[in-house]
Amino acid sequence: MRRTGFGLRAALLASALALAAAAPARAADDGEVKDFLLDNGMEVVVIPDHRAPIVTHMVWYKIGSADEPPGKSGIAHFFEHLMFKATANHAAGEFDRAVSEIGGSNNAFTSYDYTAFHETVPPSALEQMMGFEADRMRNLILTDDVIKTERDVILEERRSRIDSNPQAVLDEEVDATLWQNQPYRIPVIGWMQEMEQLNRPDAKAFYDAYYRPNNAVLVVVGDVDPNAVKAMAERTYGKVARGPDLRPRIRPVEPEQNTKRTVTLTDARVSVPSFSTQWVVPSYHTAKPGEAEALDLLAEILGGDNRSRLYQQLVVKQGIASEAGAYFQGTMLDATNFTVYGAPRGDAKLVDIEAAVDAEIARIVKEGVSDDELERAKTRYVRSMIFARDKQDDMANMYGSTLATGGNVKDVQEWPDRIRKVTADEVKAAAARYLVLDRSTSGYLLPQQQAGN
Amino acid sequence: MRRTGFGLRAALLASALALAAAAPARAADDGEVKDFLLDNGMEVVVIPDHRAPIVTHMVWYKIGSADEPPGKSGIAHFFEHLMFKATANHAAGEFDRAVSEIGGSNNAFTSYDYTAFHETVPPSALEQMMGFEADRMRNLILTDDVIKTERDVILEERRSRIDSNPQAVLDEEVDATLWQNQPYRIPVIGWMQEMEQLNRPDAKAFYDAYYRPNNAVLVVVGDVDPNAVKAMAERTYGKVARGPDLRPRIRPVEPEQNTKRTVTLTDARVSVPSFSTQWVVPSYHTAKPGEAEALDLLAEILGGDNRSRLYQQLVVKQGIASEAGAYFQGTMLDATNFTVYGAPRGDAKLVDIEAAVDAEIARIVKEGVSDDELERAKTRYVRSMIFARDKQDDMANMYGSTLATGGNVKDVQEWPDRIRKVTADEVKAAAARYLVLDRSTSGYLLPQQQAGN
Repeated sequence: MRRTGFGLRAALLASALALAAAAPARAADDGEVKDFLLDNGMEVVVIPDHRAPIVTHMVWYKIGSADEPPGKSGIAHFFEHLMFKATANHAAGEFDRAVSEIGGSNNAFTSYDYTAFHETVPPSALEQMMGFEADRMRNLILTDDVIKTERDVILEERRSRIDSNPQAVLDEEVDATLWQNQPYRIPVIGWMQEMEQLNRPDAKAFYDAYYRPNNAVLVVVGDVDPNAVKAMAERTYGKVARGPDLRPRIRPVEPEQNTKRTVTLTDARVSVPSFSTQWVVPSYHTAKPGEAEALDLLAEILGGDNRSRLYQQLVVKQGIASEAGAYFQGTMLDATNFTVYGAPRGDAKLVDIEAAVDAEIARIVKEGVSDDELERAKTRYVRSMIFARDKQDDMANMYGSTLATGGNVKDVQEWPDRIRKVTADEVKAAAARYLVLDRSTSGYLLPQQQAGN
Repeated sequence: MRRTGFGLRAALLASALALAAAAPARAADDGEVKDFLLDNGMEVVVIPDHRAPIVTHMVWYKIGSADEPPGKSGIAHFFEHLMFKATANHAAGEFDRAVSEIGGSNNAFTSYDYTAFHETVPPSALEQMMGFEADRMRNLILTDDVIKTERDVILEERRSRIDSNPQAVLDEEVDATLWQNQPYRIPVIGWMQEMEQLNRPDAKAFYDAYYRPNNAVLVVVGDVDPNAVKAMAERTYGKVARGPDLRPRIRPVEPEQNTKRTVTLTDARVSVPSFSTQWVVPSYHTAKPGEAEALDLLAEILGGDNRSRLYQQLVVKQGIASEAGAYFQGTMLDATNFTVYGAPRGDAKLVDIEAAVDAEIARIVKEGVSDDELERAKTRYVRSMIFARDKQDDMANMYGSTLATGGNVKDVQEWPDRIRKVTADEVKAAAARYLVLDRSTSGYLLPQQQAGN
C-alpha cells in the first residue's frame, strides 16, 4: 500500500535538503510566506511559487505516535490509514481517484510528533483538495468492519516492514534502549501485541481529540495567490467547527544517562555487519539558543556527506568502511538523537570500524573543528536551504515539520542566519558535552557466526 | 527516615522464605485462614497464630508504581510517605507515637504492584490500629505545605539511595533496558525530574482513585479470633465508604525480545566488578499452570542458595567467584524477571565469571536437572513455606503480596502441592524456553580503569 510513511521522523528536513537538486534560487515574489489563523484555530502557511502550474497542499496534525496513550501504540499511524476510508460525503477511494484523474499525486505519513496528508495537483484543483481534506477531518465513518479490515493492513505492514527485516527489528530495540522514559522509545508503527487490540472506541476517541482544525497546520506551496488560498481555506476548512482546547504536549522526559548500553541482533539473513551509536541530545525545540544549530553543523562536519571526516577517513583514506556517517534529527518536539554509524568493507572487521569512528569522535571532542571546515559546512548547509526552495514538497515539509514541533515561520526563515552565527567553539562544546562514549547506546547487526568462529 | 521500603518487588516472598528460621511448624487451629469481604468491598484475610500475644496488621493497596500515569513516576511511593501526615482526626506523628507507646513497630513499603502499611502490636491494640488505618485511608489533609516538605524528603531519599550508589544507578538503567514497554522499567522511587514536579493535584487524584476500601486487602496474622477481627474491621474499616469501581489493571505488556542487550556503568567508587543477566519470564499471575513453579525450582537449583549449581561450581569448586546465584521474582502482576549474577574473587576476571555462569546455564538448558536435585529443591522450597508459618510477618507478606497481584488465598495454600507436581522435564523446558543468552539483558558494574589498562 502506498501510504506507509511512518518512521519518517523529522529526518524529513535533513534528507529533503540533502536530496535537493543544485538549481539556482529564484527571486520575485516567490517564497514570500504568508501565515494566518482561521477563526476555528487552524493555522495556514502559504508559500507562493509560480515557476510551474502546480501546488502542494499539506495538512499537518499535531499528533504523532509519541502522543499515544499507554498500551495503544500504533494508533496514530493506524489513524493515518483510517483517514483514507469512507466519510459521510465520499465513498472510500473517491478522494484518491479524484487526485489520479487530474494527474496529481497524494500520500500521508506518521511520525513521532505529527501526522501529515498531502496532495500535489494543478492549482485549479486546490479547492477540491481542501474540500476533501476538510471533509475527512470530521466526517469519517468508523465502523467495526472498517477498523478490522484496516487493522489487518497495518498488522501486515508491521510484519513485512519490521518483523521480516533484521535492521528494523534491531532499530526498534535500540530506540527502546536509548529512550528509557521519553515516548520516542515506542515504534511509530506500534508494538504488535498492542496493534492487534486497537479497536473502534480507541479510534473514535483519537479522532475526536486530535483531528480538529485547532490542532492542524495547513501548508500550501505553489502557483497560487495567498489571498485566494485564504478565501478557499475559509470556504472549506473554515466550516469545520473548532474542537475542545488541547492540553499542552508535555511528555515524560528522559532521565540523565549514566551507562554505556549495547543492543545486538545476530541473524542469519545479515551478510555485512554494521553498527550505530547514538546519544540523547536537545532538539531545535528543547535546545538552548544556538545549540541545535551547533549540533547540525557537528553532524555535517563529522559525517554529513562524502566531504565529512568519517567518510574521508574511513571510506576514502583507510578504505576499511563501505559506509560511515553521522546525523542529527533536529526537528523534533522533545529531546532527540545524534547518531554515528559505519559498516566494514572487504575483510575489515566491524570492531575496527567502530574504533575508527570512536577515534574521530575523540578527535573532534578534543580538538574541535577548524574555522575553514566550519565555514564550508555552513555554506553547504545554507545553500541547501536555498536549493530546497526549488522543490515544493521540501518547502512544505520544512514549514510543516517545524510548525508541528513547536516552531514558527520565523524559525524557518531565520535558520540560515542562526547557522551562520555558530562558532567553532560552540561546535566543539556540543561534541564534548554530548558525544561521551561511556554514556551512549550502540546497536550491532551481526551475521550468524559460523560454528568454530 | 524509616519508611523507605520501595524497590521491594515481590522478592518479599522469596526473601522472606529464605530468611525464615528453621523452627518446626505448629498445628492446632493456628494457620486456619479465614477470608471475607466487608460490605464496602475491602478484602480481609485472618490467620490465627496463638503462640505469642502479638498481632501483625497489614493493609495492602492494589496500587504500585507500575500503575502511575505517564510522567508522574514516584507518585505511589510519594503517597506512601504522605500517608504518615496529619488527617482530619489525628495530628502528624500521632499514629507513630501510639505504636511506639505500646511497644509496637510499624512501617510501610511501595512496590511495582502494591503499597502496604503494617503494624505489629499486642492484640489489645489491634482495633486502635484499624482505627488509625481506616482514618488515613480517606481523611488525609493534603496541603501544599505538606506536599512540598515531603517531596523534599523523597528527593533526598532518591539522592542518597540511588544517585549516590553506582549499583542502584546501574540497576535502574538495566531495568529500563530489560523492560522496553511494560511499566516495571520505571523505578519505584521515580525519575528525579518527574519527582520534582509532583504536586498536590497529582497527590489528591491518586488518593481519591486508589485509597479506597474496595482497592485494599487487610491481612491480620496473630493471637486473634477471626470473628472478633471481623467485628472490629466492620466497626473501623466498614465505616469507610466504597469508592468508584476501579478499572482492571491492564498495563502495556512487553514485546518479544530479539536482541542481546548490555548496560555498563563504570565508576571510580566501584572496587569489585560484578554482573547480572536477566530475562523476561512469566509471573505466577501470567504464567501457564505449572510454569512459574518450574521457574521457581529452576532458580533454586541453578542459584538459590549455597547448595545450588552456581554456588557450588563457581564459589566452592572453581573458587573464582565471591558470589554467584539466581533468582526469580514470581509474585508480580505482570511478566517478571529471572536473574543470574556473579562477582569475581581475588584475581579472577569478571569475564571468566560470566563465562562460567553462562556455561552452567547452557548445561541446565541442554541436560536439564536430575530427579534427585529436583526432589531436594522441592523439599527445601516446601519446607520454607512451612517455616514461614513461624513468622507472622512472613505469613502476612505471603498472603498480602499474592492477593495484591491477582492471586487468592487458595493460591497460597495450594502452592506447596503445585511445587511438588513439577517434573524435571518442566524445569528443563522452562530453562530452554527462557534462558536464551542471545535474548537477554546484562548489567556490568566496573571499576574505573587505570590509564594504560
